[in-house]
Amino acid sequence: MSGNHHLYVPGPSNVPAAVQQAIHCPMEDHRNPTIPGLITPLIEDLKKIVLTEKGKVVFFPSSGTGCWEAALQSTLNIGDTVLGASFGQFSMLWLDMCTRLQFKAITMDEEWGTGANPESYHRELSKDKDHKIKAVLVCQNETATGVRSDVLAIRKVLDDLNHPALLMVDGVSSVGSYEFRMDDWGVDCVVSGSQKGLMLPAGLGILGVSPKALEAMKSSTYPTCYFDVQDMIAKLETGFTPYTPPVNLLRGMRVALDMLLEEGLENVWKRHHRLAEGTRRAILDGWGMQLCAKEEKWYSDTVSAIVVPEGEDAVPVISTAFNTYNLALGAGLAKVAGKVFRIGHLGDLNELMLCSAIAGSEMAMMSNGIKVELGSGIAAASKYWLDNPSGA
Amino acid sequence: MSGNHHLYVPGPSNVPAAVQQAIHCPMEDHRNPTIPGLITPLIEDLKKIVLTEKGKVVFFPSSGTGCWEAALQSTLNIGDTVLGASFGQFSMLWLDMCTRLQFKAITMDEEWGTGANPESYHRELSKDKDHKIKAVLVCQNETATGVRSDVLAIRKVLDDLNHPALLMVDGVSSVGSYEFRMDDWGVDCVVSGSQKGLMLPAGLGILGVSPKALEAMKSSTYPTCYFDVQDMIAKLETGFTPYTPPVNLLRGMRVALDMLLEEGLENVWKRHHRLAEGTRRAILDGWGMQLCAKEEKWYSDTVSAIVVPEGEDAVPVISTAFNTYNLALGAGLAKVAGKVFRIGHLGDLNELMLCSAIAGSEMAMMSNGIKVELGSGIAAASKYWLDNPSGA
Repeated sequence: MSGNHHLYVPGPSNVPAAVQQAIHCPMEDHRNPTIPGLITPLIEDLKKIVLTEKGKVVFFPSSGTGCWEAALQSTLNIGDTVLGASFGQFSMLWLDMCTRLQFKAITMDEEWGTGANPESYHRELSKDKDHKIKAVLVCQNETATGVRSDVLAIRKVLDDLNHPALLMVDGVSSVGSYEFRMDDWGVDCVVSGSQKGLMLPAGLGILGVSPKALEAMKSSTYPTCYFDVQDMIAKLETGFTPYTPPVNLLRGMRVALDMLLEEGLENVWKRHHRLAEGTRRAILDGWGMQLCAKEEKWYSDTVSAIVVPEGEDAVPVISTAFNTYNLALGAGLAKVAGKVFRIGHLGDLNELMLCSAIAGSEMAMMSNGIKVELGSGIAAASKYWLDNPSGA
Repeated sequence: MSGNHHLYVPGPSNVPAAVQQAIHCPMEDHRNPTIPGLITPLIEDLKKIVLTEKGKVVFFPSSGTGCWEAALQSTLNIGDTVLGASFGQFSMLWLDMCTRLQFKAITMDEEWGTGANPESYHRELSKDKDHKIKAVLVCQNETATGVRSDVLAIRKVLDDLNHPALLMVDGVSSVGSYEFRMDDWGVDCVVSGSQKGLMLPAGLGILGVSPKALEAMKSSTYPTCYFDVQDMIAKLETGFTPYTPPVNLLRGMRVALDMLLEEGLENVWKRHHRLAEGTRRAILDGWGMQLCAKEEKWYSDTVSAIVVPEGEDAVPVISTAFNTYNLALGAGLAKVAGKVFRIGHLGDLNELMLCSAIAGSEMAMMSNGIKVELGSGIAAASKYWLDNPSGA
C-alpha cells in the first residue's frame, strides 16, 4: 500500500524518528565497558518517569505482561491471596495470571466501561480482618475499554483500613502518558512496557518497586529465575544485566527519555489530555457517538473506545480502515468484541496525526453503513484544539 | 515538537519506510564489483519510468537543476537560441539559466496560473524560418503554481511546422507521478530529480535523452565536464560512474523503482490523480477557495497552489502550520509570494496523509483570520474518495 502506515492502536505507539535512528545502531557486546554509562542513567531517569525517589526501577527484556509476573512472583508466595477488580480484557488477564501462578485471586467484577471501584475494594478489604490479602491489584488504564481508574482512591482505602497489602498497579498504558505518582500514591509495584508512553518498540518491561515491596521479596519463596527482581536490581546496580538485553532498545530509550524529560512530564500529561480531549470531541460532539467509558471520570487520556450503534459491527470498520486506508485502529476485545473500535492517542503524537485517525474512521464507518457526517469529527476536534491551544 | 512531521511541500516528498531502510545501508566502495549489478538495472528501469526504449537515461549526483544544465550544455553551443514559456518560478528559472549559460533565450511570458501555450510556441516557431531556435523548452509541471502543461501539444506544433529544434521537458515534478511519455511524445531531453515522484531524498538528477539529442551532442562544443552526458552514458554502460555517486541513494532507488514498477506506472498516475482530485474537492468545494491554476486543463496532479482571499496573507498560514502543527506547506514564490500556499500531493502518499494536510491547513487559516468551515475540506475530500474508490 502506498504512503505512511497510520498507527492508532493503543500501543505499540508511534516511535519518534530520533528514537528509531538511535535504535538503528550497530550491534554491540552487552558487556562492553560503555554499558554502565548507558544503563545507570536510564535507571535513574525511569525513576523520574514513575516518580519514585524511594523505590527502585528495573527493566526486563519482556513485554509488560512479563512485569506483571515479576511483580507477583518476586513479592508473594504460592497460595497467597490477591484482590483485584476486573472490568476489561487487561484487568481480567492480570487476575487470570494470578490464578495460573497459583495465587488465590479474589476478583471483583465491575461493569465494562467503569473502572476500579473504591467501594468494592473497601468491602473486600474490610472483610479481610486477618490480612490474608497480600496484594491489591489496580489496572490504572484499562486499554480495552478506554477507562482510567483512580489509583489514589484505592491507596486511601488501604490506608483507611490500615491494611498492609501491597498495592500493585498496571500502568502499562498510562505511565509516561498521564498522571501516575509512585511515591506520592504509595504504590508498591508499578508495571509498564516500552511500547506505549515510552515511545519505543515492544521489548522492554518496566517495573518499579517500593521499599515495602523490596522488604516483601525477602520472605518470598516463589520459584523464579528470569523474573527474579532482586537479581535484576543487584545486577543493574553494577551497570549490567543478568542476561542479554536488547542494547539497541536501550540506546533508543536513552533518546526517548531525553525527549520526555525535556518536554517535562507534566507537559507530556497535558499534551496527552489535550489530544485525547480533541479526539473525544470528534467522537461525542462530531459523530454523536458514545464512548465505552460510561462517565467522564473514567475517560482515558491514552485510548478511546468508540461504541458503534446497536446492530452495527465494528469488525468490518477496522478491516476497511486497515485494508483501504492503511489505518490501524484497535479492535474490541472479549465482551466488547464487535461493539467498539479504539483509537489510541498516546506516545509521540500531534493533532494532525489524530486527524488521520478521525478522518479514516469516518470513511471506514461510512463504507460499512454506519452513518456519520463526513468532516464532523475533524470539525469538532479542530474547534477544540483551536480554542485550547497547546501551552495555554 | 511531538509527533510526526507532516511534509506536504511539492517535494521533497515523503520517502517510504522501505526506501529509507535501503538508504540506511553501510557505506561501500563505489568501484566494488557489485556496483554494475546495481547500476545497470537501475538505468534500464529508469527508462521504464520516462517511457523510452529508443533513448538513454542517466543520473547525476545533483538536483534536477543540474540536469537542466546537463541537457542544455550537452546538446547546444554557446550563442544558440532557445525558446521557452515562462509562467512560474521554475519555468522562469530554466530560461534564466539559459541566459546565464550564454544561450539566447526567447521567453514567452504567459499569465501565472496558465501553462505552456501551443499558440505562442506556434507563433514564435513560425517566425523562425531559418531554424535558429535549437531547443524548445517546456515545463510540464510548474511547481510554483500547480500548473500542468500539454507537452504533446508542443510536440505537434514542432511537427506541424517541421521544425527541427530539440524538445526539452522539465519533468521534475511530473515524471513518475503523472503521464509523461518520452518516446511517444517525441521528447528529446527530459529532466527529473530523485526527490519527487521517485520517492527518494534529493541528491540525484535524472536525464533522459533521445537518439536525436545524442546526435546533437556530437556537434556540441559547449565546455562541460561534470555534466558531460556523453561521458556519463559511456561510463554508466560499464556499470560505474565517472566520479563518486551516492551509492546509498542508488540502493534506495532500487527499492523505490521496484515499488513503482510493482504498482504499475499507470496505476501510479491514477493514484496521484485520485488523491489530487480529493485535495481539489477540499479546496474548491469544501473551503470555497480558488486554485492558482486558472482552468481545469491546467490542474496539476502533483501540487495544488491555493489562493488566499484578497487582502489576506498566506505567509503566516504557512508559519502557523509549521510552528504549531508540524505541517510543512509550500510557500508562494516570486509573483505569487504571500498570495498562495501549496499542498504537494506526490510520491508515496495516501488519503489519510492528505487529511492531515487539509485539516492542518484549515486550522492554520482559521488562526490567521482566513475563515473556512472547520471540517469542510475533509468532508469534500472524503466524499470524493468514498465515491471514487481506488482501483475502480
